[in-house]
Amino acid sequence: MSDLIEELLAGKHRALARVISKIEDRGSGYRELVSQLHEHTGNATVVGITGSPGAGKSTLVDKMAETYRERGETVGVIAIDPSSPFSGGAVLGDRIRMASNVGDMDVFFRSMSARGTLGGLSTATTDAVKALDAFGKDRIIIETVGAGQNEVDIVGTADTVAVLVPPSSGDDVQMLKAGILEIGDVFIVNKADLDGADRTVQELKEMVHMRDASPLAGTAGHHGVETDAVGEQDEDDNGDDETWTPPIVETVAKTGEGVEPFLDTLVDHRAWLEASGELNAQRRDRYEEEIRRLLREGAGELIREEIERQGGLERYVDAIVAKETDPYAVTEELLAPLRESVRE
Amino acid sequence: MSDLIEELLAGKHRALARVISKIEDRGSGYRELVSQLHEHTGNATVVGITGSPGAGKSTLVDKMAETYRERGETVGVIAIDPSSPFSGGAVLGDRIRMASNVGDMDVFFRSMSARGTLGGLSTATTDAVKALDAFGKDRIIIETVGAGQNEVDIVGTADTVAVLVPPSSGDDVQMLKAGILEIGDVFIVNKADLDGADRTVQELKEMVHMRDASPLAGTAGHHGVETDAVGEQDEDDNGDDETWTPPIVETVAKTGEGVEPFLDTLVDHRAWLEASGELNAQRRDRYEEEIRRLLREGAGELIREEIERQGGLERYVDAIVAKETDPYAVTEELLAPLRESVRE
Repeated sequence: MSDLIEELLAGKHRALARVISKIEDRGSGYRELVSQLHEHTGNATVVGITGSPGAGKSTLVDKMAETYRERGETVGVIAIDPSSPFSGGAVLGDRIRMASNVGDMDVFFRSMSARGTLGGLSTATTDAVKALDAFGKDRIIIETVGAGQNEVDIVGTADTVAVLVPPSSGDDVQMLKAGILEIGDVFIVNKADLDGADRTVQELKEMVHMRDASPLAGTAGHHGVETDAVGEQDEDDNGDDETWTPPIVETVAKTGEGVEPFLDTLVDHRAWLEASGELNAQRRDRYEEEIRRLLREGAGELIREEIERQGGLERYVDAIVAKETDPYAVTEELLAPLRESVRE
Repeated sequence: MSDLIEELLAGKHRALARVISKIEDRGSGYRELVSQLHEHTGNATVVGITGSPGAGKSTLVDKMAETYRERGETVGVIAIDPSSPFSGGAVLGDRIRMASNVGDMDVFFRSMSARGTLGGLSTATTDAVKALDAFGKDRIIIETVGAGQNEVDIVGTADTVAVLVPPSSGDDVQMLKAGILEIGDVFIVNKADLDGADRTVQELKEMVHMRDASPLAGTAGHHGVETDAVGEQDEDDNGDDETWTPPIVETVAKTGEGVEPFLDTLVDHRAWLEASGELNAQRRDRYEEEIRRLLREGAGELIREEIERQGGLERYVDAIVAKETDPYAVTEELLAPLRESVRE
């Protein structure tokens, strides 16, 4: 085992930070490092927090971390900025605040952006979660703005996904339908003290109900959403092990109101994941998806190496322009050695 | 040469349709077919038409095709529906109308959707354009809604990209900035008879001017946008061979108003592409990008084959869950034969 991993397992935050930097940079030997983490993982619970900008994600995550710490649990936070390399990094700026607020190294905070991460953010997030888990953090929170495909992939690393919705007009809730409804295990109406919160809760209830009723949900015979206000989830509601009805929780993150009940909901969801067998099924699916993703990345790297070894594509393009060959024939030629090695 | 390609080159529309179907299905032998097309390409001009739903794209494309036919030129239209496999295909529905409107096989119309196309839409579009070009169509029009990354890729097959903008509030024009401004060689304010058209033209002018003035544009010493209304592009405006300032053209596609001047603008842009050397540079870039894309697709296929040959990933996932191995080690193992073949 490498010294760095030994130090990480011994609880050195500096080693944890260095491992995550290596994950971001894909420096030499990063694969071996991540390999060594795996056997030490599996003890943390991982929660994904997503929602539109301004929904109050960072404030809520602060309060969650604070509450976990009061309970004696250790916390790791990864804040993801999935924006393109050319746009600003609002998430990053925000969160310098948090580290100083909490003032406690047992809330380990790390931000990642497409700009700062070589390769895919999904891979970097998955691996950073492994590092936090192996380190021994009890609770891992992944925070990101939603919800394009990338964000969905990223949040897909979490056991439980909580979607933050600001109190607002019906139009906005309608827009959520596009992708965020499908990924939410819990919905949080944050800033529940503002006008429009009740209406937003009501609309979310209807949407969740419609999702359950739709043939795509594939769930029969359970009793829909009967969630009460401010996080008092009806105990009976998810008593059925076979299905999970996303509860709608109200919070005022700024004051901490509703945060405890929200954390209880996360415990409920985790218990359901375990009892239903979903947790295991989900882990297996994710390992399979991770292998496929790493294979795609690895094959892409091999191709870039091969092109470089050939001195670039210039001469192939020359030949294509001269109509001596064509893109398909060139591709066939370049893939031939790989193809043979697979088929033999 | 295959019989099918011979028939296509002989001008049989049925053969053209069958080749494009094979491109969509990726049936056996489709690569060889597309390979054979290449040497017969390079004579058509390719225009991409994009814009938000309801901007009037299909009506404009109808009128363009009609006008080209009146001039004795042959036309191929590919309408792309880049929506996810789960959403409807509005584009497709629309365009049944067109084929019957024009009632002329020399306007060959084909729609493609993510749903109906195996593999990537970018590849299918590039290849369908090759088929139309080799067939001998003078003008090829690619129509798609904009502007996510996929749409940008698809429209990137075109020599000239025209972006349709409906007359509307300033807010909407602001939203265009996200991606469509960068890809537009020509902007069309369609429905120019509606209120707000003048304002939209003005806003587009300012945006184009800002783009030219920005350091990213990297163009110095040319004289900005001085486009007159309804497509009367100032002749001097793009007289400078080194830069192209996107003109803003007004049309009323429904009546055909402004369509002729728009087509003249396309001729201007094509002339500029040739004179500036951009056409050749662009072609070379695209061939290179095509090779890289085909290599990625090919490598992905090889990986799927390899996984299948191994009887799926089940046993690897078992071993990962049992902590006997981890995703990185599994990937290393599966890539090893490919890696060796590249490096030896």
